Amino acid sequence: MSMLSENHDLVLSESRGAVRILTFNRPERLNAWTPDLGRRYFDLLEEADRDPSVRVVVVTGAGKGFCAGADFEALAAIGAGGVPDGPGFEIDPRPTTFPITLRKPVIAAVNGACAGLGMVYALVCDLVFTAEDAKWTTAFSRRGLIAEYGLAWILPKLAGQARAMELLLSGRTFPGSEAYALGLACRAVPGERVLDEALAYAEELAVHSSPASMAVIKRQVWDDWERGLDESRDRAVMLMRESFGQPDFTEGVASFLERRRPDFRPL
Amino acid sequence: MSMLSENHDLVLSESRGAVRILTFNRPERLNAWTPDLGRRYFDLLEEADRDPSVRVVVVTGAGKGFCAGADFEALAAIGAGGVPDGPGFEIDPRPTTFPITLRKPVIAAVNGACAGLGMVYALVCDLVFTAEDAKWTTAFSRRGLIAEYGLAWILPKLAGQARAMELLLSGRTFPGSEAYALGLACRAVPGERVLDEALAYAEELAVHSSPASMAVIKRQVWDDWERGLDESRDRAVMLMRESFGQPDFTEGVASFLERRRPDFRPL
Amino acid sequence: MSMLSENHDLVLSESRGAVRILTFNRPERLNAWTPDLGRRYFDLLEEADRDPSVRVVVVTGAGKGFCAGADFEALAAIGAGGVPDGPGFEIDPRPTTFPITLRKPVIAAVNGACAGLGMVYALVCDLVFTAEDAKWTTAFSRRGLIAEYGLAWILPKLAGQARAMELLLSGRTFPGSEAYALGLACRAVPGERVLDEALAYAEELAVHSSPASMAVIKRQVWDDWERGLDESRDRAVMLMRESFGQPDFTEGVASFLERRRPDFRPL
Repeated sequence: MSMLSENHDLVLSESRGAVRILTFNRPERLNAWTPDLGRRYFDLLEEADRDPSVRVVVVTGAGKGFCAGADFEALAAIGAGGVPDGPGFEIDPRPTTFPITLRKPVIAAVNGACAGLGMVYALVCDLVFTAEDAKWTTAFSRRGLIAEYGLAWILPKLAGQARAMELLLSGRTFPGSEAYALGLACRAVPGERVLDEALAYAEELAVHSSPASMAVIKRQVWDDWERGLDESRDRAVMLMRESFGQPDFTEGVASFLERRRPDFRPL
Repeated sequence: MSMLSENHDLVLSESRGAVRILTFNRPERLNAWTPDLGRRYFDLLEEADRDPSVRVVVVTGAGKGFCAGADFEALAAIGAGGVPDGPGFEIDPRPTTFPITLRKPVIAAVNGACAGLGMVYALVCDLVFTAEDAKWTTAFSRRGLIAEYGLAWILPKLAGQARAMELLLSGRTFPGSEAYALGLACRAVPGERVLDEALAYAEELAVHSSPASMAVIKRQVWDDWERGLDESRDRAVMLMRESFGQPDFTEGVASFLERRRPDFRPL
Repeated sequence: MSMLSENHDLVLSESRGAVRILTFNRPERLNAWTPDLGRRYFDLLEEADRDPSVRVVVVTGAGKGFCAGADFEALAAIGAGGVPDGPGFEIDPRPTTFPITLRKPVIAAVNGACAGLGMVYALVCDLVFTAEDAKWTTAFSRRGLIAEYGLAWILPKLAGQARAMELLLSGRTFPGSEAYALGLACRAVPGERVLDEALAYAEELAVHSSPASMAVIKRQVWDDWERGLDESRDRAVMLMRESFGQPDFTEGVASFLERRRPDFRPL
């Protein structure tokens, strides 16, 4: 009965060492989101998070785009009165911010068009590498829409209040180089190199950073926006004490003192 | 009985297409704030927000300054024991952050001196354009005052914690070009062009951005600082669903697919 | 019985006018933190905060480092099962974020290595000046540790969410010039000049900024992250009204109008 088998190609999955690469794969539509693509993406993220051989996930797009947003045929259907499947809707209980809940870091390699929901997909990753000339846009205000799925929360925390407001009110298109300057991406590189650079960085994390540490730190950074400083500090002291009893702490200190690569355990 | 008629010239009001221009008009005092100027400004903002022909508001100053802060004669009177009228006081129940509560975007075109309360006035606008050589200063610490009217909340969200702290502790003067670099302004331009650039940008918003979308997005961006990410996302899903039923969504998608200017409805 | 006398040299204390200079003094270990050094540092901070002749505190390191983090001998002992004294532990009830609670501004002059707990020490100061070539690193993820003592709260508020996440997940080393570009430091200067520049800035604060104003503003900026904008504004109005009755307000306005240096009272 399941039609999932038909959907496998909507997102490609490949392992390179400890890095899992997921690739949106509707290149003829600049990887525009459909409900099936969204579900498949999140299924593969869950699988990567469970797989002990995976330490870091990299997400990119096939062809010229990263993700051009919700597919306009779907949007047109909505405009005509339909109700879509997808993030925030009942058919997939996982919200669009789902990647944040994974234990492993997720890195977006934005190779091209990154618009609307595609921009949300990029910014709910933990880190973003972007092609310098990738076209970014929030787009919402130009379609009669609103700041979707938490973007009004995330953008100001990346770019500051004024620059976030400007991108959201205008819906203008801006290049990856500006996404970097604004703090949305932590690196902007010539387009043909973006996946390689993201992979090289991911491999560094896989080798040098404790998976257990990364899982805790990821939670701290996303969640501490909802805490006061004192509460954040007290919680950090508790988490630090827990880490003292773990093998990764012993190995982290030993490898440092012995000036060798650490051999951290998988999650 | 009303003395309002005498106050009309304290702030000028002019419409250019769908953009309403408000101009602080005490040029002989660098547009220093007085209770009457403050009330008149907020009255005109309310009027612009109600007027369906207005889609965006631009605020600037006549002459060489934007707003040099509270008028020193008023401050001297306070020092001598008087109690002022004005923001935060009983005579005008609208707080200094009032512009944030409007439905329409308010853009400051900072043409010159922007100090103390004047800097608050600039930064409670949604967007800021500044002359490169406009002189900005928080000034408070140098007058024995404190970070007034929410500036201790806003500045760190624009410039980051350290740079906000630095500007507030020192009270030093800095140029518009630095205000831009720090994230306070989204554009710094040669002084004689600041109003024209702000107007050109405002007209872009008036043409391409749905007024209904801008009203919702403005609320989201200001308010989501007080929400967690999950709450912000859930609220965005609800707002998105509401937008699906509105004519601006139909028009936004149609105009995009037909590659023509949108014809969005007034608020 | 007290061994405090032996500890005096762990942190040096010197007054230059109204500026108190504290210097971490274990240069042979890049001023790595030990429980005794931490206690001594906080004792001297308390003393400076109480001393009416002090208006600003500058913290730096002797020799080539600022503070290289927790001493590895201590860490190795923990790995072997020991339980350390120090921040967050019972022997010193003052938490690592203690400097934030002082009334007077604390400025870090980061002269060299600034790692792990040393980076926390720098960033719980109100302002940071850094040597351009000082080596900064969070380091935690590479030791199997977590984002310690509130750094997961502070870093995103200085550098934005993405850049903070990147520094914490990777634990990579970055120069002071990048710490400046990221918003961690408000000034990066050639290494040999960092203390002099921090002192010159501190002296400006001591001369031109009201100590009472700085005490209030420091509290506002740190605490307003936990308030909404309306609450922050209402609190500011209350604090402003209090300041109107104080001598520093009278002096601040008078010195401005008379174009002379203010003569603000000590705290």
